[in-house]
Amino acid sequence: MAAQVLYDFTAEPGNNELTVQEGGGWVEAQNSRGNIGLVPEDYIDIKSGSTQAAVAQQISALNQAYSSSANTQGLNGNEAWTTTTNPADSWNYTEPDPAGSNGSVYSFDEEWDDDSDDGKSSVGYRGPQSEEGGTMQRSGGQSSMKMALNKFPGFSKTPNPEVYLLTKHIAKGNDRLPIYPGEVGPVWLYPQTQLDCVVADPKKGSKMYGLKSYIEYQITPNTTNRAVNHRYKHFDWLYERLVEKFACALPIPCLPDKQVTGRFEEEFIKMRMERLQGWMSRMCRHPVISNSDVFQLFLNYRDEKEWKIGKRKAEKDETVGVKIFSTIDPELPEIDPAQVEQKYETYSQFTRSMDNSVKELLAVGNLHWKRCTGPLQKEYRQIGRAFQNLSSVFNTSGYPRESTLTEALTATGKTYEEIAEIIAAQPRKDLHFLLETNNEYKGVLGCFPDTIGVHKAAIDKVKEADHMVAMNKISQQDKQTMERNLSTMSYSLQAEMNHFHSNRIYDYNRLMQFYLEEQVAFYETIAEKLKKALSQYTTI
Amino acid sequence: MAAQVLYDFTAEPGNNELTVQEGGGWVEAQNSRGNIGLVPEDYIDIKSGSTQAAVAQQISALNQAYSSSANTQGLNGNEAWTTTTNPADSWNYTEPDPAGSNGSVYSFDEEWDDDSDDGKSSVGYRGPQSEEGGTMQRSGGQSSMKMALNKFPGFSKTPNPEVYLLTKHIAKGNDRLPIYPGEVGPVWLYPQTQLDCVVADPKKGSKMYGLKSYIEYQITPNTTNRAVNHRYKHFDWLYERLVEKFACALPIPCLPDKQVTGRFEEEFIKMRMERLQGWMSRMCRHPVISNSDVFQLFLNYRDEKEWKIGKRKAEKDETVGVKIFSTIDPELPEIDPAQVEQKYETYSQFTRSMDNSVKELLAVGNLHWKRCTGPLQKEYRQIGRAFQNLSSVFNTSGYPRESTLTEALTATGKTYEEIAEIIAAQPRKDLHFLLETNNEYKGVLGCFPDTIGVHKAAIDKVKEADHMVAMNKISQQDKQTMERNLSTMSYSLQAEMNHFHSNRIYDYNRLMQFYLEEQVAFYETIAEKLKKALSQYTTI
Repeated sequence: MAAQVLYDFTAEPGNNELTVQEGGGWVEAQNSRGNIGLVPEDYIDIKSGSTQAAVAQQISALNQAYSSSANTQGLNGNEAWTTTTNPADSWNYTEPDPAGSNGSVYSFDEEWDDDSDDGKSSVGYRGPQSEEGGTMQRSGGQSSMKMALNKFPGFSKTPNPEVYLLTKHIAKGNDRLPIYPGEVGPVWLYPQTQLDCVVADPKKGSKMYGLKSYIEYQITPNTTNRAVNHRYKHFDWLYERLVEKFACALPIPCLPDKQVTGRFEEEFIKMRMERLQGWMSRMCRHPVISNSDVFQLFLNYRDEKEWKIGKRKAEKDETVGVKIFSTIDPELPEIDPAQVEQKYETYSQFTRSMDNSVKELLAVGNLHWKRCTGPLQKEYRQIGRAFQNLSSVFNTSGYPRESTLTEALTATGKTYEEIAEIIAAQPRKDLHFLLETNNEYKGVLGCFPDTIGVHKAAIDKVKEADHMVAMNKISQQDKQTMERNLSTMSYSLQAEMNHFHSNRIYDYNRLMQFYLEEQVAFYETIAEKLKKALSQYTTI
Repeated sequence: MAAQVLYDFTAEPGNNELTVQEGGGWVEAQNSRGNIGLVPEDYIDIKSGSTQAAVAQQISALNQAYSSSANTQGLNGNEAWTTTTNPADSWNYTEPDPAGSNGSVYSFDEEWDDDSDDGKSSVGYRGPQSEEGGTMQRSGGQSSMKMALNKFPGFSKTPNPEVYLLTKHIAKGNDRLPIYPGEVGPVWLYPQTQLDCVVADPKKGSKMYGLKSYIEYQITPNTTNRAVNHRYKHFDWLYERLVEKFACALPIPCLPDKQVTGRFEEEFIKMRMERLQGWMSRMCRHPVISNSDVFQLFLNYRDEKEWKIGKRKAEKDETVGVKIFSTIDPELPEIDPAQVEQKYETYSQFTRSMDNSVKELLAVGNLHWKRCTGPLQKEYRQIGRAFQNLSSVFNTSGYPRESTLTEALTATGKTYEEIAEIIAAQPRKDLHFLLETNNEYKGVLGCFPDTIGVHKAAIDKVKEADHMVAMNKISQQDKQTMERNLSTMSYSLQAEMNHFHSNRIYDYNRLMQFYLEEQVAFYETIAEKLKKALSQYTTI
């Protein structure tokens, strides 16, 4: 299980900012916030005053470890990455295909065919157009949630908040989700220590005497420091549960895409692991999700039995859909419905604008990636070769004072060839993280319309309340309950937006610093190389 | 006549390497070799230990001065350059059109129609297929010489060296061109002070009450420091004389192209001036050419009368074509014809290979220029805009802790927009000189086949000598004369090759240093700008 060093990061053990402790290819690292987590040893880069270490440790989204089984396949991951694939292509930052392709993709997905132990409960919602109306895949493809509609029959699109609006139940005990007045407005209750986990060490496993094979990942939470194993389908099961339970209140971003071909290729496994890591880290950071029973089960189960019992319990959970709001308890005064509506409009507008902006950045970044690994690399190679060819010709002159110039020219040519490779490798170093983070945000942002839709439906219901009272369909007291519950929903969305904004500012701050540091290093490296080439010429 | 400062060069007066003395937009500069010359003030860049100053002073090929008349046209040359034209296109580094287009171009060239004072003598050779056989345009278009064939009737392609081979005349006095044994082999006699000149200050003049107009350049040699004025047609006249007189022994590169449209456009005038400067500097550097009467006349004539008398004399010069060899006097032992032949093969091979290599560099450089000013600039602008757009969206969040990130993001976006402009402006700073120099070399190299052809023809004649003696067509003494004269021709070519090699090594050494210094500065500038952008983010 020894990790392979894939990237040229210079580690400086003994640095005070990060306590490093070796452990089989993984190091336990503590960042400046005091969080402790496992980090793949080969991706740690410690620089004083830099954000590199924090980036590597915190998100682990750039988790680069290979399992030993992957290594025995004899593929050099680093090389394969920079020369044989364009990750910006295969990682699918672009918009998904028009609707319809999902169904056929899923129907061929071996991962769901090769294992029958819980295949039944999962296959149901995967049909391209589920006639049972159990769940629904919303527009926007990968970047929207599947809303659990089976709990609210009669509504074709948005879960009906009425069930909740009229409820008088107030959550107590473990289920209770309090909202506090924070400095920035209503906020969730954040735990003292932030949960995080490391997804690593993908291993090929097989069933039925090798007839069916799969990839299993190791997930190690910072709380127990004890690894659990999960296959992609388990992540998908977790995602399902989180959507059913929380999607009316919280945007639950989709898992990384499924894929039919090349599921066992090193490159794909690496990509999926990195994205699962990103997804898990985001879930861990959410105080409501990370504290939920189903999420804790996923990270902490001790054996198969505990896992199966927990699974069954989670699947029978009744507090799903809009009912989740009944567990939310804002310790704040009731809010005026008119105010709520305006806030929703602001949130809606913001997430739409940011979604556009993120897509613009993805498109531009994708283009730039292709240029760096394509025409630019080619062109710098050509420049390098042209200088070297000129040097070769000069060498044939027979003129006695040739060597200094020809040697310098050859060195210059080789330098430009090196620069070609540096340019082609650079997107992998900086643009990759920028694209991955923005891709994650695209996923989250795609969920907001659904979440906000539930709230808008609730407002419409409350607007009808006076009429309903007049029609004797509900009592005056019912109307007050509805208004109080709408207020709760509004606080819930505000807390969620504040969670989103706080994370967004943190993520983009870190992202931009990481990107710019790498960019500075890139330009400085090239300048240094050219200086060295320059020094070989005789001074006139 | 005050020069306009067009480029951001930081001058540091008082630097010991270059004595700078102001003088109306021009500075007299002395380089490390002790040569003194006029340099356009706005193109001097003095750095200790750099080759910039030497480059600016010596070749002046990058001469950037604008005349005041050009300024009044209200065009900002610098802007026009980077935004409205692709110099790599319009400067024609690519191969010329297939044969045939020259004739029609010339027939429309106003510069030859608008002025009759000496039009007659010049127009003769310009017909696409001169039936008088007066001169001939060789294959290769702009990069070959026009050989003066009228002196050797009966030969359709290569001037007949027989006229010379049988001559017993030995040059004496001013006409004598000695060849000495140098460290690297036979060399021309080099003057103690190297001649150079500055071509500058293009002015629009007119004739016939403004009906015909033209551009006049000011040429100031470092010997007299007194400016003379010449139009392009005068340069062309000089070129004609040099070809007639020297082309059998020395490659005389063509003048910069003629052009029909846009002759009075600032951009074109600037380009032509720069190239005339490059051509003149190369001629000045040649000890045989720079010392010739016709070249001295061109640089030093005191008035119209002296110019006209000198012109008439030069046009009547009898020592032209292969006769030039009779003025060459190698102070070296006679060389064996067999040895001569082998040397010619080596020279021929070398110049062909270098010609290919130079063309490769031009093609690659041209591509790179287009990429920098086209797709790359566009892409970095897009990246810059994407960051700024994201910042604008973030600004609308209503979240209280937004400003540090949005300000930093905006600054980053603006930095990438600046980088886009730096990238687009860079080829003008470094690639331009690389392409211009290689273009000049392409021109020189294109002349070698013709020059070497004369020598090969001479060898063939000498090979026939025994047969001719046997046939009683020539005497034994004639044969010895032929062999001695062939030896002289061989020394002439060797001296010329050594001149070429020495200049080549000097030019490419300087060129590469200049290019790499600019490239280093380019990458360092970008790194600095990104560092500054990075510093605006809050440390996590």
